Amino acid sequence: MAANSFGTIFKITTWGESHGTAIGVVIDGCPAGLELDLQEVNQALALRAPGHNPYTSPRKESDQAEILSGIFKGKTTGAPISIQIKNSNYDSSKYEPIHSLLRPGHANFTYLEKYKIFDYRGGGRSSARETAARVAAGVVAKKILSRHHITTLAYLKQMGSISVSQVAIEAMGYPELCKQTQESPLFCPDKTATLHMIDLISKMKDEGDSIGGVVEFVAQNVPCGLGDPVYEKLSSKLAAAMMSIPAVKGFEIGSGFASASMQGHEHNDQFILEQETGLVKTKSNHAGGILGGISTGMPITGRLAFKPTSSIKKTQMTLTLDYQEARFSLPEGSKHDPCVAIRGVVVVDAMLSIVLADAILLNKGAVA
Amino acid sequence: MAANSFGTIFKITTWGESHGTAIGVVIDGCPAGLELDLQEVNQALALRAPGHNPYTSPRKESDQAEILSGIFKGKTTGAPISIQIKNSNYDSSKYEPIHSLLRPGHANFTYLEKYKIFDYRGGGRSSARETAARVAAGVVAKKILSRHHITTLAYLKQMGSISVSQVAIEAMGYPELCKQTQESPLFCPDKTATLHMIDLISKMKDEGDSIGGVVEFVAQNVPCGLGDPVYEKLSSKLAAAMMSIPAVKGFEIGSGFASASMQGHEHNDQFILEQETGLVKTKSNHAGGILGGISTGMPITGRLAFKPTSSIKKTQMTLTLDYQEARFSLPEGSKHDPCVAIRGVVVVDAMLSIVLADAILLNKGAVA
Amino acid sequence: MAANSFGTIFKITTWGESHGTAIGVVIDGCPAGLELDLQEVNQALALRAPGHNPYTSPRKESDQAEILSGIFKGKTTGAPISIQIKNSNYDSSKYEPIHSLLRPGHANFTYLEKYKIFDYRGGGRSSARETAARVAAGVVAKKILSRHHITTLAYLKQMGSISVSQVAIEAMGYPELCKQTQESPLFCPDKTATLHMIDLISKMKDEGDSIGGVVEFVAQNVPCGLGDPVYEKLSSKLAAAMMSIPAVKGFEIGSGFASASMQGHEHNDQFILEQETGLVKTKSNHAGGILGGISTGMPITGRLAFKPTSSIKKTQMTLTLDYQEARFSLPEGSKHDPCVAIRGVVVVDAMLSIVLADAILLNKGAVA
Amino acid sequence: MAANSFGTIFKITTWGESHGTAIGVVIDGCPAGLELDLQEVNQALALRAPGHNPYTSPRKESDQAEILSGIFKGKTTGAPISIQIKNSNYDSSKYEPIHSLLRPGHANFTYLEKYKIFDYRGGGRSSARETAARVAAGVVAKKILSRHHITTLAYLKQMGSISVSQVAIEAMGYPELCKQTQESPLFCPDKTATLHMIDLISKMKDEGDSIGGVVEFVAQNVPCGLGDPVYEKLSSKLAAAMMSIPAVKGFEIGSGFASASMQGHEHNDQFILEQETGLVKTKSNHAGGILGGISTGMPITGRLAFKPTSSIKKTQMTLTLDYQEARFSLPEGSKHDPCVAIRGVVVVDAMLSIVLADAILLNKGAVA
Repeated sequence: MAANSFGTIFKITTWGESHGTAIGVVIDGCPAGLELDLQEVNQALALRAPGHNPYTSPRKESDQAEILSGIFKGKTTGAPISIQIKNSNYDSSKYEPIHSLLRPGHANFTYLEKYKIFDYRGGGRSSARETAARVAAGVVAKKILSRHHITTLAYLKQMGSISVSQVAIEAMGYPELCKQTQESPLFCPDKTATLHMIDLISKMKDEGDSIGGVVEFVAQNVPCGLGDPVYEKLSSKLAAAMMSIPAVKGFEIGSGFASASMQGHEHNDQFILEQETGLVKTKSNHAGGILGGISTGMPITGRLAFKPTSSIKKTQMTLTLDYQEARFSLPEGSKHDPCVAIRGVVVVDAMLSIVLADAILLNKGAVA
Repeated sequence: MAANSFGTIFKITTWGESHGTAIGVVIDGCPAGLELDLQEVNQALALRAPGHNPYTSPRKESDQAEILSGIFKGKTTGAPISIQIKNSNYDSSKYEPIHSLLRPGHANFTYLEKYKIFDYRGGGRSSARETAARVAAGVVAKKILSRHHITTLAYLKQMGSISVSQVAIEAMGYPELCKQTQESPLFCPDKTATLHMIDLISKMKDEGDSIGGVVEFVAQNVPCGLGDPVYEKLSSKLAAAMMSIPAVKGFEIGSGFASASMQGHEHNDQFILEQETGLVKTKSNHAGGILGGISTGMPITGRLAFKPTSSIKKTQMTLTLDYQEARFSLPEGSKHDPCVAIRGVVVVDAMLSIVLADAILLNKGAVA
Repeated sequence: MAANSFGTIFKITTWGESHGTAIGVVIDGCPAGLELDLQEVNQALALRAPGHNPYTSPRKESDQAEILSGIFKGKTTGAPISIQIKNSNYDSSKYEPIHSLLRPGHANFTYLEKYKIFDYRGGGRSSARETAARVAAGVVAKKILSRHHITTLAYLKQMGSISVSQVAIEAMGYPELCKQTQESPLFCPDKTATLHMIDLISKMKDEGDSIGGVVEFVAQNVPCGLGDPVYEKLSSKLAAAMMSIPAVKGFEIGSGFASASMQGHEHNDQFILEQETGLVKTKSNHAGGILGGISTGMPITGRLAFKPTSSIKKTQMTLTLDYQEARFSLPEGSKHDPCVAIRGVVVVDAMLSIVLADAILLNKGAVA
Repeated sequence: MAANSFGTIFKITTWGESHGTAIGVVIDGCPAGLELDLQEVNQALALRAPGHNPYTSPRKESDQAEILSGIFKGKTTGAPISIQIKNSNYDSSKYEPIHSLLRPGHANFTYLEKYKIFDYRGGGRSSARETAARVAAGVVAKKILSRHHITTLAYLKQMGSISVSQVAIEAMGYPELCKQTQESPLFCPDKTATLHMIDLISKMKDEGDSIGGVVEFVAQNVPCGLGDPVYEKLSSKLAAAMMSIPAVKGFEIGSGFASASMQGHEHNDQFILEQETGLVKTKSNHAGGILGGISTGMPITGRLAFKPTSSIKKTQMTLTLDYQEARFSLPEGSKHDPCVAIRGVVVVDAMLSIVLADAILLNKGAVA
């Protein structure tokens, strides 16, 4: 289980299990001199935490971070920043009835096969809890982005068969899009869609079931030139980052899968001169802000598909650890998250920030 | 433009421009003792080469590889394997009329911005020509896979709005699927769809336009346990690998974007015992053979979206290098590829093989 | 200040400043199923801690480790192992008089230049305190080594002009060498030399000065085949590991610098057959157990030079932060370590273990 | 046999065996816009080539490089630079008599054990021939250095028991040191020592024996701030780079092993203000230009020990491949190099340049 690190110059290493003492992240390669306040980290964590709203898992996570290194007098020093978040103690005895079962759609089977260890207490490293460490690191990454006036946004675009109105989204403009996203309990910028989604969540809760979703991301003011042409395309790195988020099954940049049905003359974005800035822009942005792996200066846009949460209360057939057929359902009292895509929004935004921060630092080394 | 390498233990480094002397790949970390024959490399290259069939670019690429190191008496020695493919000389004078234009949908704009160099002769490192080096490396990777009885397949699933019949595909079984794919000039296992696609290509050629497509991949007999749980999930690595292929705009594993509309009880794959082998399998395979980033032992399946080729003959508006409006169209006599997804099939198969070969070697180090 | 990680598969990332809340290490890539006991970590830390004996710095460091992740029921799980060691609070006010001075032979000058930050409280990341995290990681690495029956040893070979008797060392055999090293308060296996060294330390203390030293290491039972031939030679990795220890100025393997004066017929180790084991060994071991970067099966031996501690009480000339001439001496009451090579012995042993553990895991991936 | 790459941003990957078709290097991460001329590469190769002077191996290596990619109109483009050097065909039949013997002091034993392949034709990847590829890459690295006014020098300091006069060296100043080194057939700046060394080489040739040596290196005008504090110290990287050169057994920076006998007040370099430049310098340079892993702005100095060439004509006892005792001596007619340290000088200079070029590019990413 190597490979708990992500990034090249701005590099994060996360650790900790959902049922252990604490989880944490070590952020290496962060430049010196950036202001960092614990408050900001905790605010970001609060957004991701279950219990942020009644529509995600009601499990209470306190998520108070501690910064243990790398900060002196409120500024980064260039030394690794170690951030730690204690886990709240909680009773894992309620998981007793499912101790000896393979959980459908869950990684406890693959862990057992790979590591020959069965930690029945929960998701271990594949738990969504690990993503809190990413969110903390995202706050630090954003410090680098803001030096370059880059802003990022992620929002819930689809839940089950309910989608935001593309017309409404495009009409509102970026600042309004950010505002509406922040105001939505589901990080969904379309008020009407939000209401339908809330109904859908209630239905899923009642049925002990869960539902998938799509998250969209946008990065504004990304300068032209980030990313590298072949195996380290900005799109490749974003894909790797996003596919590393638990429950993500698909990734697309710009026009994505829709491009498969398009013709060249439709898809090619026309280069135009932006008079105010004297910069080259494109009329449309099917490229999603990346051509040949390198940012174009247009907004970086893309989408991710989240599968429905695998842990549900509805009864399903499975196998015991000794391969006998058995019924599985999450025990009464255990909490479940009817749509992981909602909290996923915050994690997507964090990973986007981390990839861009690293790309900025890497690009500096492209000049002699 | 660092980052022309891919992989951790089984690592490839590619080099060369489409209009230079040669292109090539250095394959590092290949174990000793594998039989490797130049013939096999050349056969694989022939599949990818334009001119393989009348439906891709008619540009003649000879693509005869040379193996310059790492082989002794027909076997790998453990030393880096250097493979080189000469470029055929060809007249770039026909590109004269478009020397000073930004090509719509093309990376010459981002290259110019990042490197301050404008190589008007063609795609440089972002040219599809680079993928020939990947195909050569894929042949070597397959040697490792075959030691583990793993087989891979990629095929054209969709072109424009024409898709293969899912029913037909599922009916035919894996060996037949391979056979049909090989027999199709478009690597499309559905004969009816193939005929429609051929018509569509003709139409695109007539219009001087291009069309997008979707490629699906399958890996059989992948043992349980490959991949790592957090940032080096097998799905993350496949995503990075596939998104690094020119013109790819989207990637999904298993149920992919369709999972966004599914409910948990539908999506979770039921664990069952396979009586003949005594192995745990799943009834369905929405996971695409990966749970928590680790292979389950079920087939690894996924899909990629290719955008329509950006270089088309149809006239488009663009800018000159000094930012004046201008018309752009590929000059008469220059060859263009109406659907890159077709040749993309061979590259997808190569990248799949490379990721899996590396995952097998990496997994050996997971045991003390 | 990236690059706080070491290793490829078995990879450690350390964090923390000498004057912060805590220091720690995240050990990634440790295989599952190894027994690990907190007690063992604390015992190893005690050996390195100042105050272990009257001859090193009397500063009291409690050094009680906590293991925060990666262990379940006393065994490693394959997840990253996070180990944390709290720093004892101590009064940094005594450093007040030297706040605005460049410390001779010390990294505070280079840190200031690189990071534009002046943390006057002490060594920050270049403090020897960071090495406690390495020692903790070394305990985990040794678990992998012991699966392969590999043992490691480091000892003090020279302090100033006092050296152990090579004749005595060679006479005692490996088990006795280990025993004598453990019994010496200076980790020096030669009793007579130890006594002379104790006198030298007293003298240095009296003079407010410090003294350099040489540490030798030996690894027994290392199988043939570890390491790679070119840039990842086992000797290259050991060199990088050892030169990363604070105050180390030189590294040599086997015959080292002495080989410069030798002739080929003297230096070449004669291959012989070891009758009991049927293994090929060499009569002498000038190679230090490594030929062409790959372990031979003979003991891996080498040496490191430690410079004298830079922080001394003796008055030296230096510059203030605004480049005025000034006198520098460690303030009364501040503790100083007359010979860092002594505590360095424990760190050398840890780094040796970490390099070998990683080499073992890497070597598994050399076979298809 | 992975790990044929060196460097992080400026990264080289070498390939090829001494008895294969060709050897080569792919240089990735070189910034665009640097002038590069094939002539310069060939001149550097000529310095390293055997036959440069009568005192190294008389084997004729033509060593004409070809640049296959990464250059457009005489300048680097940012794409990987592939350089290839053909091997001259030569008759390996003269090695027939030693085909089935373990060569004393040589890596053919460890290769056989690790890879289960016995390429009797010569050193394969451990051959000094591989270092030609490093020299070619060094030429490119120097282009980056010269942008920063950094110059490098390596010279032969010792052969057997003959050393240059330290007094003479220090008296001559850097420009004269460079001139004398260039003029010496042995790259030894001391004329008297050169004459004695020439005698010693003759003696070794007559005896069919070989002799070790020490190479010193100096880099001038290295700015303060290169390198990172913990595991990526500039000294660690130099150590890894130098220890990866065949036959190197020891490495030291600044005062090196001599520091073990020094006291703190002697070793600490006094900070002084250089009036002309307003920069902080040190009076002495025991640190060798590196404090806490980071360059100080003083010259970077260090030394390497080369063992005597293992391949000698003098008869030695060894084992056959089936473990029978046998006599070994290089066959008549085969060429041998009485002192590899001489040609090693050129390789040391190349590796020094590569490490510094990478450090410069890496340091750019240290600022937000």
